[in-house]
Amino acid sequence: MKVIAIVGYHNSGKTTLVERLCKELKKRGLRVGYIKHDPKGHGITDKEGSDTDRVFKVADRVALASPEKTTLWDRRGDDPIEIAREFFQGFDVVILEGYKGLREVPKVAVGEVEAENVVLKVEGTDEVGHIIELLERMEDNL
Amino acid sequence: MKVIAIVGYHNSGKTTLVERLCKELKKRGLRVGYIKHDPKGHGITDKEGSDTDRVFKVADRVALASPEKTTLWDRRGDDPIEIAREFFQGFDVVILEGYKGLREVPKVAVGEVEAENVVLKVEGTDEVGHIIELLERMEDNL
Repeated sequence: MKVIAIVGYHNSGKTTLVERLCKELKKRGLRVGYIKHDPKGHGITDKEGSDTDRVFKVADRVALASPEKTTLWDRRGDDPIEIAREFFQGFDVVILEGYKGLREVPKVAVGEVEAENVVLKVEGTDEVGHIIELLERMEDNL
Repeated sequence: MKVIAIVGYHNSGKTTLVERLCKELKKRGLRVGYIKHDPKGHGITDKEGSDTDRVFKVADRVALASPEKTTLWDRRGDDPIEIAREFFQGFDVVILEGYKGLREVPKVAVGEVEAENVVLKVEGTDEVGHIIELLERMEDNL
């Protein structure tokens, strides 16, 4: 599995870049995952008082099984390496968004941003090709 | 892993029973999971237009990593056995809510309800003890 992170300031186009990157990688037949960092816990991913919300307070792991998707809630920290190990086994590429300070994962910086271990700087969302080349050259790092 | 399902009509107290059951099982030091069936796909588990919602449309699996919890979205059907195999490895007990027609999982019926493979009928949410006894007698079925 190859794990890279896309970093950049708010509104720099990180998610648009990730969308384009996913599409290109999917065209190549790869299994692609994405882990978005939510360091302040602002993400609301369930309705307060729903059955899954209630049971998540007392169980270790909860899933909502819908025909088109499964949503899973797990009680753990936000370490993307642990998450990738537990939940993305068998994936070809896992793209992180955020995690500027995480040294062990190579970074693609969108615009000017300070981050650990930046291996590629891109200026905008059109530079997907350069990230694909980077991934092709890269060895599995997880 | 022991897998059982709690079935019953709407408002029969299934989720309250599951909450009490989880608390009792956690007191015994067990790792407890819960899979809620959402056959009509009514569950909304992300904000439309959020980064994770956008990328889920183009990736195979997406996670939001918050300090207190990780939310994972996966593209698969609602078969609870497949979900348990993929996402609940190492769990002691996985409680399903719903899945009345799923023959291979033993059921606890709350009140009068028609379901496949009912092994215990309970009348209300106070009968957690009987379900605990059932689980203690049961062999791993997954």
